[in-house]
Amino acid sequence: MTGLRRPVLFLALLTPEPLFAQSTTHPLDGLATAEYWSVYDALQSAGHLTPETKFTSVLLHPPSKATVLAWTPGQPVPREADVVLLRDSKTYTARVDIATKRVVEFGELKGAQSAFLASEMFGADAYIKKDARIIEALRKRGISDLRTVSCSALPVAYRAVPAQATERVGFGSCSRTHGTYHSWGRSVIDEGRARSALYEASVSKLFVPYMDPGNGWNNRAFIDAGEFFAGVGFLKPLKPGLDCPAGATWFDGQTISEDGAPRLTSRLACLFERAPENPAWRHLQGSEVYGRPSRELVLRSAATIGNYDYLLDWRFTPDGTLTVAVGATGVIETKSTTMTAAHDAHSGPETGQLVAEGVIGVNHDHYFSYRLDFDVDGTSNSFMLNRMVPQRVDNDPMRKSIWVNQPVVAAREKDAILDIRLDQPSMWMFMNPSVRGSLNYAVAYEVMPGATAKSILSGDDPVQRIGAFSEHQFWVTRYNEAERYAAGTYPTSSDANDGLAVWTKANRTIENTDIVGWYTLGFHHITRAEDWPVMPTMWHEFAIRPFHFFNKNPVLDLPKSLADH
Amino acid sequence: MTGLRRPVLFLALLTPEPLFAQSTTHPLDGLATAEYWSVYDALQSAGHLTPETKFTSVLLHPPSKATVLAWTPGQPVPREADVVLLRDSKTYTARVDIATKRVVEFGELKGAQSAFLASEMFGADAYIKKDARIIEALRKRGISDLRTVSCSALPVAYRAVPAQATERVGFGSCSRTHGTYHSWGRSVIDEGRARSALYEASVSKLFVPYMDPGNGWNNRAFIDAGEFFAGVGFLKPLKPGLDCPAGATWFDGQTISEDGAPRLTSRLACLFERAPENPAWRHLQGSEVYGRPSRELVLRSAATIGNYDYLLDWRFTPDGTLTVAVGATGVIETKSTTMTAAHDAHSGPETGQLVAEGVIGVNHDHYFSYRLDFDVDGTSNSFMLNRMVPQRVDNDPMRKSIWVNQPVVAAREKDAILDIRLDQPSMWMFMNPSVRGSLNYAVAYEVMPGATAKSILSGDDPVQRIGAFSEHQFWVTRYNEAERYAAGTYPTSSDANDGLAVWTKANRTIENTDIVGWYTLGFHHITRAEDWPVMPTMWHEFAIRPFHFFNKNPVLDLPKSLADH
Repeated sequence: MTGLRRPVLFLALLTPEPLFAQSTTHPLDGLATAEYWSVYDALQSAGHLTPETKFTSVLLHPPSKATVLAWTPGQPVPREADVVLLRDSKTYTARVDIATKRVVEFGELKGAQSAFLASEMFGADAYIKKDARIIEALRKRGISDLRTVSCSALPVAYRAVPAQATERVGFGSCSRTHGTYHSWGRSVIDEGRARSALYEASVSKLFVPYMDPGNGWNNRAFIDAGEFFAGVGFLKPLKPGLDCPAGATWFDGQTISEDGAPRLTSRLACLFERAPENPAWRHLQGSEVYGRPSRELVLRSAATIGNYDYLLDWRFTPDGTLTVAVGATGVIETKSTTMTAAHDAHSGPETGQLVAEGVIGVNHDHYFSYRLDFDVDGTSNSFMLNRMVPQRVDNDPMRKSIWVNQPVVAAREKDAILDIRLDQPSMWMFMNPSVRGSLNYAVAYEVMPGATAKSILSGDDPVQRIGAFSEHQFWVTRYNEAERYAAGTYPTSSDANDGLAVWTKANRTIENTDIVGWYTLGFHHITRAEDWPVMPTMWHEFAIRPFHFFNKNPVLDLPKSLADH
Repeated sequence: MTGLRRPVLFLALLTPEPLFAQSTTHPLDGLATAEYWSVYDALQSAGHLTPETKFTSVLLHPPSKATVLAWTPGQPVPREADVVLLRDSKTYTARVDIATKRVVEFGELKGAQSAFLASEMFGADAYIKKDARIIEALRKRGISDLRTVSCSALPVAYRAVPAQATERVGFGSCSRTHGTYHSWGRSVIDEGRARSALYEASVSKLFVPYMDPGNGWNNRAFIDAGEFFAGVGFLKPLKPGLDCPAGATWFDGQTISEDGAPRLTSRLACLFERAPENPAWRHLQGSEVYGRPSRELVLRSAATIGNYDYLLDWRFTPDGTLTVAVGATGVIETKSTTMTAAHDAHSGPETGQLVAEGVIGVNHDHYFSYRLDFDVDGTSNSFMLNRMVPQRVDNDPMRKSIWVNQPVVAAREKDAILDIRLDQPSMWMFMNPSVRGSLNYAVAYEVMPGATAKSILSGDDPVQRIGAFSEHQFWVTRYNEAERYAAGTYPTSSDANDGLAVWTKANRTIENTDIVGWYTLGFHHITRAEDWPVMPTMWHEFAIRPFHFFNKNPVLDLPKSLADH
């Protein structure tokens, strides 16, 4: 338990995936309202729901990739749901067949904990405020009106104390609320036929470790996608005219409440086209400029996880490039301090920066793991590193060195755990060795890193063991439908026994088979006065683009003006 | 001399800077038409212009920074011009006082060569086609109609053969033209007063080394900003509705022809505002989203240097961030080959990729050096590295490590020659140690690198010696008004005796004085079929942003909708 910090309200957390469809038209469509209720009824009739049972998540159990790829519109598809329940502090998982309302599997999940629930976080308020040590600590700070104090318990992803193995453990903190307002793609069509580049791309994990070892801060290392309770959802509503143009296409989403009822939320994603006023290509030849204006199709959602807001973009351009971008904004997480500006800030805290009088923005990192299930013209792909290798040139007065490209196909998972080093450049490509383009190169898609960061925490740190994916920029795994979350499916209080670093110990073969790429988008954040009281949006991005996938520039014949299309 | 390659016409090259103003209203305004003619008349009356004398450049001699900073509107300013002439293969430099039409300085420039002229490049056509070896080589290839063969001579920036020290040396090549169409920001106002962040920012150099050691390709390592002739200019006209919105504000530019006459070109730059449909900031609190839509002011120009087109953007956002971006498009430089697609491309050339039948896109790099003359709230600045350093945490079950921020002020130039290493992260800041913000931090601007590359050529390579700036991502020098070009002022045939790598050998002190930052924006380019016959635009960028420069987020009170401003 800590003393006071700047008042922060945790209002909103997450489920793994938003569900956008209202009717079943595709095997990967999210559960419809009636389907949620079928799941509920099945569990109820089977006697699995006590009055105190809470729902952590109800998600479509995705059909096998083979089923999805074989499906054609109009065909019936098997529909099943994966359910996680919390009952008497124990976690249970279930699988329900929706058509028959039958519970196919049910059992206690041992050695793992369900995500934290809102009722656990906020339900701790009364309990914490009854603790004599808390009452005394508040009294010393001149606070006796406990109605203006709000306490909550936060989960911690990793196992820091032994009790976490078997009990539901949260780490508490209290805020004073008095006088304050707030206290914080898939397939590409070209050339006349549909071709696939990606089967699925998703945010797999979000890991935000803070860098203050003080009591009440040492536990702050959030696995924001996976650790928190279902109910309100990871994604939050978008605002027309602010987050997306008012004329965008809007998608509603459905998720589960703790009580098992589906909950519909409007505008959880938007789709819009924008014209960035840049040419898709241009060339000056003689005195004439030839070219075509570009356009961009943006699929956007926003996650608000307590204080932080993240805009999550999937930006498609007609040249076959998909740019994946994260815009970080919202309110930084802060710590109260008695330090004043009169103090020499330059010899100030090593763990943060003053951002206002009495307010320290604490150093932290953000790491997103993007799961990229490449299926370039089919499911059997290889991962190729095309290294640029310096080479000496002898007996030439004009040159003493060049670099040459030396492609190497990764045989096993450990060959494809990659870091970015500017002195050892390489290109990262997913290729289909069985499909050749007109120039006889294997068709491929390239992953192009953007500005990014890797974790520099030590490997034995309990926080880093959970967020181990952040140690490297890129990973490739052999496809396994159970491996969806880079830090494991049940990170809450876990012992780091799941996730990328664990799976890749098997060092499976990854050549000419179904493989998945995992990109780490990261940034270190030392805060500044300009980040207070709300941060200007900071964007980070990476891209994937066709490489010998098309036979020529695919945007040569775009409309000559934006009005033409 | 080489044999045939794919026909490529070099139509257009460069002078260091475009001149946008038509009348003298500011000490840094470019020369006006009448001023060009005063320069011409002064040189003519002094007897320096023989009938064969060619003008390489006529540029404003910038007044001292002290003069500019002391100037107020309406005051008269001294106007001088720097002139480079080529006469009998010798380079002469002159300085002319414009008001008095007096030649203040005139002399031969020894040990350096003026930039190459268009007349030298294209004037070589007849000479080359008279060479018996060329005629024979063309005959062997079945070409006897020399009207359909176009030959030219290209300069090479570095000294590869001894004759370059004293003679004008070009490296020739011929193209067949038969049957083909083409053969290739400153001050920030806020808080009620004007404050400076940058005195001047500019593209200082562009270095494009190719990676083919073959004859006719081993000399291809272009210093595209500095090596080529004046006349047409580095910047080329922009096309309304393609390069910039039709309603943009357009800037004309004036530069010099070889004959000394000023030449006006329309639409050499544009300025427009765009709404990227992103929030400048947003936060979901409760069920309400608060925020403000962002906008962006874009100053854009385009350089076409033979085959390549570069869009050069300076993007200003209201939060005080300046994003500097380069969009590369146009036509890749190619080499003919007898290799066919039937050949196994995967064991194909290490020096390039087939992009079409018979056409190899040759591996190459692009390096831009941006000169950033930071004057953060005044001319005396320091450069601070804020390192993120891992630190062990002992006796805490919750954590074993954090990182802390450890700021270090660079004392000398060699302390600030920087590479990006993800395992040793740091922030780069220009700060004014004499000006403190409300929180007592020195006001600063941060340089935020984007995705970039460094040269991996060997340091003794003659090409790399000229483009030595590309070995590192960032440099800081003590301000010297003569040091404007990262690879030297006269790179043509030079012996690498000028530029960043040479200046910083002096290891001058850079603390609390006038200093300049130099950012290397680079990318390696292995070509792909999608880059042919013209490349989709590929953007690279970096940004500078305020850091404890303002007292809070400066965009809190932007208009609530784009229509409001």
